[in-house]
Amino acid sequence: MPRPLITLTTDFGEGSPYVAQMKGAILAVHRDVELVDVTHSIRPQSVLQGAIVLADCWRCFPTGTIHIAVIDPGVGTQRELVCVEAHDCHFVLPDNGLLTGVLQTYTPSKIVRLSNRRYHRAEVSNTFHGRDIMGPVAAHLSLGVPLEDLGEAQAELLRIDLPQPTLSADQIVGEVILIDSFGNLITNIRGPLPQPNAEVWLDDQQIGRPVATYGERAAGQPVALIGSTGRLEIGVVNGHAARVLGGKEGSRVRVTW
Amino acid sequence: MPRPLITLTTDFGEGSPYVAQMKGAILAVHRDVELVDVTHSIRPQSVLQGAIVLADCWRCFPTGTIHIAVIDPGVGTQRELVCVEAHDCHFVLPDNGLLTGVLQTYTPSKIVRLSNRRYHRAEVSNTFHGRDIMGPVAAHLSLGVPLEDLGEAQAELLRIDLPQPTLSADQIVGEVILIDSFGNLITNIRGPLPQPNAEVWLDDQQIGRPVATYGERAAGQPVALIGSTGRLEIGVVNGHAARVLGGKEGSRVRVTW
Amino acid sequence: MPRPLITLTTDFGEGSPYVAQMKGAILAVHRDVELVDVTHSIRPQSVLQGAIVLADCWRCFPTGTIHIAVIDPGVGTQRELVCVEAHDCHFVLPDNGLLTGVLQTYTPSKIVRLSNRRYHRAEVSNTFHGRDIMGPVAAHLSLGVPLEDLGEAQAELLRIDLPQPTLSADQIVGEVILIDSFGNLITNIRGPLPQPNAEVWLDDQQIGRPVATYGERAAGQPVALIGSTGRLEIGVVNGHAARVLGGKEGSRVRVTW
Repeated sequence: MPRPLITLTTDFGEGSPYVAQMKGAILAVHRDVELVDVTHSIRPQSVLQGAIVLADCWRCFPTGTIHIAVIDPGVGTQRELVCVEAHDCHFVLPDNGLLTGVLQTYTPSKIVRLSNRRYHRAEVSNTFHGRDIMGPVAAHLSLGVPLEDLGEAQAELLRIDLPQPTLSADQIVGEVILIDSFGNLITNIRGPLPQPNAEVWLDDQQIGRPVATYGERAAGQPVALIGSTGRLEIGVVNGHAARVLGGKEGSRVRVTW
Repeated sequence: MPRPLITLTTDFGEGSPYVAQMKGAILAVHRDVELVDVTHSIRPQSVLQGAIVLADCWRCFPTGTIHIAVIDPGVGTQRELVCVEAHDCHFVLPDNGLLTGVLQTYTPSKIVRLSNRRYHRAEVSNTFHGRDIMGPVAAHLSLGVPLEDLGEAQAELLRIDLPQPTLSADQIVGEVILIDSFGNLITNIRGPLPQPNAEVWLDDQQIGRPVATYGERAAGQPVALIGSTGRLEIGVVNGHAARVLGGKEGSRVRVTW
Repeated sequence: MPRPLITLTTDFGEGSPYVAQMKGAILAVHRDVELVDVTHSIRPQSVLQGAIVLADCWRCFPTGTIHIAVIDPGVGTQRELVCVEAHDCHFVLPDNGLLTGVLQTYTPSKIVRLSNRRYHRAEVSNTFHGRDIMGPVAAHLSLGVPLEDLGEAQAELLRIDLPQPTLSADQIVGEVILIDSFGNLITNIRGPLPQPNAEVWLDDQQIGRPVATYGERAAGQPVALIGSTGRLEIGVVNGHAARVLGGKEGSRVRVTW
C-alpha cells in the first residue's frame, strides 16, 4: 500500500518555520506520510487567492490525497474548521470560503467539523490551528480514522464571491485573477472560447487572437492562449507580461468576436 | 519501523542548489530517510537567528528526529563540528552557539566531535561541510551508527549571548528578535505574563493589553499576544506590523503594570 | 529496495503551484517515489543557467537517480523531449542544450525521444509538458519501464555554448557565471589552478592569491578560492561579494601569474 499523501497550501511564506512546525506536528502523529507543498506563497490572508490555487491544483494529485489549506485570518474566532470529502479526496481547512473554487465543479459528499479534541495536538494555541488542529487531524485521517470520528456533521460550507466572467452576444468580459511566476496574467475566463476567431484585449490593449502555444509568436510579442489549467492567459513570449503590458490582478480582460 | 526523519536548517536561501547537494549527499548514504526543511532563510551567517529558530521548532518534531543546522561562518577553520544528543533527538551542527536556544531548556546527554572520517564524504571540501560532513554523518546516524563511533566525546558546547529580557518590579523590558513572514514582531519575552492587565509598548508606541487572538481586534489595529511558540508578539490585524508600526529586530518592547 | 529518487530543476519559481502540479502528476503514476527539489529559481527561460546548475548538482545524488529539468522556452514547438542515460542516472528534459554542462564530462549511453504517448498524461496541454509529459515519463521510468519503450532512439543532443575560459602563457581569463545566495561570484574557471601563487582579478580589482577557506581572511575582506563544486569563486568574508565588489554574471575574472 502506498504511503498516504498530504499536501499543504498556506500563506506562511516560502521558508517559513511555521510550515516546518506543521510538518513536525503531522509527522509526530503519523511518520509514514508523504508531504507535498502546493505553495506557501498565497498572499497573506487572501482566501480568494487560496481558493483559486486550490481549485487549479488539487485534481493533479492522485485519489485519496488529503489537502490541508491554512489561510486563516479568523484563527481563534468563531469560524469552524472542517474536513470535507469530495471526489475521493479530503480537504482539511477553515470554513471560510477556501473551498469555493473546488465547489464550482465538485459537490462534497461529507462535511464534518473538527470538534473532537482527541485528534488535536495536546496543547492548542490561539493563533496557530494549522499546527495544532488541522495538521494533526489530517495525520489521524491518513492513519485511517473515519471522518465521522473527527466531529459532528455540517450541512453547508461558507462560500466567497469568486470573480465571474460575464458572457454577452459578442463578448466575454473577465479579469486577471492571478499573476504567475513568469509574469503571465491568468484570467477567470475558461477555455475553450466560444469563437475561435475571437480577439483578446487587456484593458484597451489588443493582444490578438489566441494561439496554441507561446512558440507561435516571436520573443517579446504579447500572446493570449488557453493555459495549462484551462484558463485564458495573457503572456509575453520569453518576457514578463505583468511588467511589459502593465496588467495586474483585477485588470479587465475581454474576448470579443 | 518508520523512516528516520532528518530536518535541515540553513542560511543557504530558499531554492539554493546547495540545499539539494546536501540532500543528495544524505541520500547517497541512506536512501530511506524522510527529509524536512525547517528553513533555509536564516540571514546569512546569523548564528543568533539560527539559534532562535531551532529552539522554536525542534520540539514540534517526533522523538528520534535528527536536526542538521548549517549556519557556519567558520567553515574550514578550527571550529568543531558536533553531534549532540538531547531529549531523544540529535543535533548535527557546528559548535558555534547554534544550540544556545535549545540549551536554555534542555541539557545534552552526549556530545561528540565529528572527527571520524569514515562517516564523511569521500572528498571533503574546505567550504561546504554541510554537504561533505554534517549531511553524511546525519545519514549514518539514521542508519544506526552509534554516536560514540562518530568521534571523541566533548564536555561542553560554545554558547552565544541570546538577548534576555529584564524583569523589574513594574515592568519587563525585552526586544524584537524575529520578524515573521506576516510581519509580526516576535519578542524574547515569554508568556504567560506576570500581570494579566499589563500594557505592551513597542518603543514609545502603546500597543495595549494583550489579547488572546488576532480576531479580537478590527483589521488594521495593532495587537499584542502570546504567540504560537509561547513568545509575546506584536502584530497588526490582517496587516504587516513591521511596516505599519516601524518595528525591527532589536526594537525595545516593554510590558508595564 | 530503496524508493526511486526523482529530482526537479525548473524555472517556475520557489513556491510555484506549477511545481506542485508536476509532483501531483508524478505521484499519480507512482506513489512510492522520493521527490527532491534541486531548485526552481533558474532565471525564467535561462537554459544556460539550468545547464550550469544541473552540471554542478547531479553528481551529489546516488546512482539510479532520475533528474527532471524543465526550462523549456520552446514548449509546444518542434523541440524534442528526451530521456538520456548517463553514468547510471537518467535525465528527462527538453533537447535544448540543458544537458551541455553534464556532457562536458560524461557521454550519454542512450538517448530516446519521449514519443510514446502511453507514458504521457491522459490530457496533454500545449504549454506545460513538465506536468503532462516529463513528470509522468519519469514516474513510469521509476516503475521500471525500459528506456526503449519511451520512444525511438536519437543519436545526438543539442548543445549550447557554455562560456569557456581561455588559457595563455601567463593567465586564465574567465567570467562570472552564477551568483549564489551568499552573493559569491562563481566562475567558469575550474581548480586546481596551474600556479599556486597566481593572482585573481575581478575586472580591474585585485582580489589576491587564492586561499583555502573563507576563515583565512577577516570579515569584510575579498577572497578568491576554489569552491565546493570545484570552481574558482570570489567572495567577501561574511559579506555579499556581488554588492560589495560590484560583480555580476559576465564580469571578467582573470588569474595571472
